[in-house]
Amino acid sequence: MTSSIDRTTTVANQESDATFDLKAYLKQQQVQVEAALDQSIAVIYPEKIYEAMRYSLMAGGKRLRPILCLASCELMGGTAEMAMPTACAMEMIHTMSLIHDDLPAMDNDDYRRGKLTNHKVYGEDVAILAGDGLLAYAFEFIAAQTRQVPPERVLQVIAKLGRAVGAAGLVGGQIVDLDCEGKSNVSLETLNFIHRHKTGALLEASVLCGAILAGADEADLQRLSRYAQNIGLAFQIIDDVLDITATQEELGKTAGKDLQAQKVTYPSIWGIEESKRQADQLIAEAKAELAPFGAAGQPLMALADYITARKN
Amino acid sequence: MTSSIDRTTTVANQESDATFDLKAYLKQQQVQVEAALDQSIAVIYPEKIYEAMRYSLMAGGKRLRPILCLASCELMGGTAEMAMPTACAMEMIHTMSLIHDDLPAMDNDDYRRGKLTNHKVYGEDVAILAGDGLLAYAFEFIAAQTRQVPPERVLQVIAKLGRAVGAAGLVGGQIVDLDCEGKSNVSLETLNFIHRHKTGALLEASVLCGAILAGADEADLQRLSRYAQNIGLAFQIIDDVLDITATQEELGKTAGKDLQAQKVTYPSIWGIEESKRQADQLIAEAKAELAPFGAAGQPLMALADYITARKN
Repeated sequence: MTSSIDRTTTVANQESDATFDLKAYLKQQQVQVEAALDQSIAVIYPEKIYEAMRYSLMAGGKRLRPILCLASCELMGGTAEMAMPTACAMEMIHTMSLIHDDLPAMDNDDYRRGKLTNHKVYGEDVAILAGDGLLAYAFEFIAAQTRQVPPERVLQVIAKLGRAVGAAGLVGGQIVDLDCEGKSNVSLETLNFIHRHKTGALLEASVLCGAILAGADEADLQRLSRYAQNIGLAFQIIDDVLDITATQEELGKTAGKDLQAQKVTYPSIWGIEESKRQADQLIAEAKAELAPFGAAGQPLMALADYITARKN
Repeated sequence: MTSSIDRTTTVANQESDATFDLKAYLKQQQVQVEAALDQSIAVIYPEKIYEAMRYSLMAGGKRLRPILCLASCELMGGTAEMAMPTACAMEMIHTMSLIHDDLPAMDNDDYRRGKLTNHKVYGEDVAILAGDGLLAYAFEFIAAQTRQVPPERVLQVIAKLGRAVGAAGLVGGQIVDLDCEGKSNVSLETLNFIHRHKTGALLEASVLCGAILAGADEADLQRLSRYAQNIGLAFQIIDDVLDITATQEELGKTAGKDLQAQKVTYPSIWGIEESKRQADQLIAEAKAELAPFGAAGQPLMALADYITARKN
């Protein structure tokens, strides 16, 4: 873990600015996000559902979506405080999608983030409800907890987030993914559709919602949208590569699953080296979108580098 | 179906106002709600998820939650147009809860509203995702489609609805319900907790959200909250009674399930006659809350009567 961050720091230092310390930035943002997530859900009666929700929400993870949301809000002149409820909601929804994705009827996974999956600990029924609870709470949390933001912007954020999670986003990507299971003739177009929706939509929403809260204009939103779409696809390409090259210990989840399932992935189409090259190209394009923002864009620049440099 | 509505009409006529035609009112509201629901989800690529969402959303049902929402908004001086997106969202969320509740890992039901359950038609994986899609879309739909309402009221509605669905509401009720399965020593207090959350919270949210959209003041919201809590509990008591007394054809779902599962219900604690008496008492108290509204309260009065008079 340390080595991946070290490498990222170096990359970020070389490519964006020698004064920006990504390692310290990530650490600081993660601490803030963890604290906010920890405070977001108290365990009251009926304890089991809150414990199940917290079990997966507090199971670590990179907190990439919240950090992107906070960074994007600050880039557009907002404060971390304005974006924190939305940032937490992004992680609640991401966690919900992992809990449901791990269910026996879906990917049937026993481990996630190095721990037993939710349904292995609490049972399938509780895991389904814990996901539903996190999804509903994410919207409640944004609507009830956002401060110092005009209400019409908060509504825009809720609309965008709902779309990013539903059939037009994450859920739609998962459906096509399920449909492609066991098929060896999946086209690159379909693979792109899956990942632009399954992973990309929520990453893009994280970036855009942060910017919307800060009052970004349409031109900046379009620029950030292209940034986010590029890093989203790069993120998935690297995920596919790591599934082949990383160990289970590094991943915190079962490694080699795609190969075992004979799943069509970017490396299965392009090979590992070309996949890495494509990811690097997407990251370069993402970073180019940030050029007009100058030094203020450093956190998002460094986060883009982090996507390809990570080990899990 | 006709006979139950006829009986309701008579009750409503006797007890509220001879000029109010509940049968015509329900029919008219149902037609409007069906049309709005039908327009709310188009089938586009990937078709399967939209079809699965529509399959359960358009499978009939009483549309009680949307009708309560519209009636409450109109009672407080708002228009049906202001409340229609929220009314549809209530039905999307109710439908989501039914889809997930019917899953093999939960209640494992094959029939709902007289049709095969979602997972029996589309598979468990798609059914889980269809529920997630409906839940996310409900919030998007309110945020993106509500017109002629100040945005801070829409945010209040989203916060209240999120709370009504999540661990503090519906999901919390379901968790306690699951926990009580196979237990014969469930207390009346626990039974009340289950139903105030599992059924009551969303019914209450339907009534309150309609009123919030219209700009109701705190006193009226408290009055409507008591109305809604009473009809919610009465609704569940009658549900338990119908599980014993109605046929599968009348219910559109498996009858006698509670007895078979040796589930503690209101009739198992009180007997059938006392259960009906308690439900009638709750309905009388609910209607008493509406007295200050005079003739404008007729639709909600009649809807309260409908709860106990219904046959499914």
